[in-house]
Amino acid sequence: MDSAAGPHDQAATHMRAEILEQPAALRATIGALLPRCVEVAALAGRARQVLFFARGTSDNSAVYGTYLIQTTTGRLASLGSPSVATAYRSWIDLSGVLAVGLSQSGRTQEIVETLDWARERGAAVVGITNEAGSPLAEMADVALVTEAGVELAVPATKTFTCQLAALAVLALGLGADLDAVALRRLPAAIEDLIDRTTAPGSGLGKIIDELAEVDGLVVSARGLAYSAALELALKIKEACYLHAMGISYADLQHGPIAVVDAGTPAIIIAADSGPTLDAAVNLAKRVISAGARGYAIGGGAALAAVSSRALAGPALPEWLAPIGLIVPGQLLTEGLSRRLGIDPDSPRGLSKVTQTT
Amino acid sequence: MDSAAGPHDQAATHMRAEILEQPAALRATIGALLPRCVEVAALAGRARQVLFFARGTSDNSAVYGTYLIQTTTGRLASLGSPSVATAYRSWIDLSGVLAVGLSQSGRTQEIVETLDWARERGAAVVGITNEAGSPLAEMADVALVTEAGVELAVPATKTFTCQLAALAVLALGLGADLDAVALRRLPAAIEDLIDRTTAPGSGLGKIIDELAEVDGLVVSARGLAYSAALELALKIKEACYLHAMGISYADLQHGPIAVVDAGTPAIIIAADSGPTLDAAVNLAKRVISAGARGYAIGGGAALAAVSSRALAGPALPEWLAPIGLIVPGQLLTEGLSRRLGIDPDSPRGLSKVTQTT
Repeated sequence: MDSAAGPHDQAATHMRAEILEQPAALRATIGALLPRCVEVAALAGRARQVLFFARGTSDNSAVYGTYLIQTTTGRLASLGSPSVATAYRSWIDLSGVLAVGLSQSGRTQEIVETLDWARERGAAVVGITNEAGSPLAEMADVALVTEAGVELAVPATKTFTCQLAALAVLALGLGADLDAVALRRLPAAIEDLIDRTTAPGSGLGKIIDELAEVDGLVVSARGLAYSAALELALKIKEACYLHAMGISYADLQHGPIAVVDAGTPAIIIAADSGPTLDAAVNLAKRVISAGARGYAIGGGAALAAVSSRALAGPALPEWLAPIGLIVPGQLLTEGLSRRLGIDPDSPRGLSKVTQTT
Repeated sequence: MDSAAGPHDQAATHMRAEILEQPAALRATIGALLPRCVEVAALAGRARQVLFFARGTSDNSAVYGTYLIQTTTGRLASLGSPSVATAYRSWIDLSGVLAVGLSQSGRTQEIVETLDWARERGAAVVGITNEAGSPLAEMADVALVTEAGVELAVPATKTFTCQLAALAVLALGLGADLDAVALRRLPAAIEDLIDRTTAPGSGLGKIIDELAEVDGLVVSARGLAYSAALELALKIKEACYLHAMGISYADLQHGPIAVVDAGTPAIIIAADSGPTLDAAVNLAKRVISAGARGYAIGGGAALAAVSSRALAGPALPEWLAPIGLIVPGQLLTEGLSRRLGIDPDSPRGLSKVTQTT
């Protein structure tokens, strides 16, 4: 048991239950979607580039998509701005573009409208959603429907990791030179990671104790893992009401590093391998030399050795690591929320489906 | 005089002097760059899309570039990820792409390397920098060198607004149906705005008084003005060490709205006209109904009427408004920094030229 006792019993929050359901949700999602690579290939095999449209947690998934597709498929991939479609109604030539919309509910009207706009301007359209029959699933040329099941907690957990798995399938459909067998092994790796993170002595309880005393923190990563940093910062904002800045190592050093101090720690996220690991280690050293605490999630022995405290990451190749790297962060968020006297299932001011007004 | 007396005399900070120099810097920059539209047109008139590479303040400029180009030139424009080039060395087909790198010093090695990578992969290259003869200026096919003069304060002010002016020239070179005369009138509009913002009774001093009591705040905008929100949040982080979250109206409502409360106000930025103004007004209402203070910068009478306090924005069309909307924010940052006992010219942990390690 960790020390994160709070006003709610551990087993009683939907958020915790849904974090623990991720291996099963991922197994179902990967089983359903992997065979559909061929449909993606048929629709988009000749697409020149990929343009993602999403908001909130789904936008963090899209960030993973941009890095994964650019590093493995030889295609440009970037984030589009829904307001260019919905507010400005701009006429942009999108022939040769694969527009990918992400919305867990499939009912975020802004995203559906933006994809309609993209199709009118020449794009092919993929929808990634957890809801079969939703407007997003219905309007897409190919709908990749994740099998996360019903998610009751407002902070998304299993729908997020299942979106990332769907993006891995998208990359495979676009011809990425990646091993689908590794994707099939992912659920077991997540199961193992949950066991290790929730085991006594993992360090999770001590990090929660220390974060309960801060007003804000920085969450940083680079490259493929950047999506996990953005998502952890969003979870902490949503469920713990803390100022959590999700930022890349590089942008952090262009100004915002000034906020890091004895009262503002950093969480640094990295895969256990890959070309951004050295930068993670250097960032942790810089954070600690600035008098701040630096917590590691992942990054193997190299990052743990220079960090104040460390949570182990998943045993996964770099391209799949983000799907695991968020999991210790989800457990941290849920425990810290309860520790702060908040109900993580129902943060103030939020509802499950957000419409942009 | 506002009430932002601090450990430094008002006239003594470089940052304040450089804010006040902006009309002259913009006049010189626009005079130098407007005639060079033709070179941009010759290089990039047939480019299908624009891809920006930048970090920190320059990245906030690039955000303005993406909205401006997409809403006025019929081209897709998006932000590229330097790590895809420098860490992953991905092979991506960039034929038909105009790659635009921004770096005030022209010496951010990561950006220069990324543009070299982009050119090898087929892109044409524009550099926007304040330093003639810098590596960025030397390597670009067309270098748009801003005339901001020497900037001594670490938080960029005049180099930022001059970058935005260079991006307006870029859009004109790409065939935007915009009035170059309005761009020539910009420096006078900024001069007028500085006079109004620093005049007694502008409200600036009272906002600084109130922000001196908070741990964090949210800065929000949408569409073209979003760049000004990101930049103001960065300035406040750099020079005031506060947790300042720069976020779009839409993304704010997808989770982070939970952080807004009696101790965490929001600054909402909008042009006085344009298709995102109604959403700004709605957001201000929502912030205030959540028990938080909502400060307006710009947005005309409609936004001021529903805000706790308001600073007037510039008398400029929406496409140029961001260049003015940041100016009250710069004055706010400089005054708040001194009020908090910080030297805004030399924030801890930062130096003027940042290299990504």
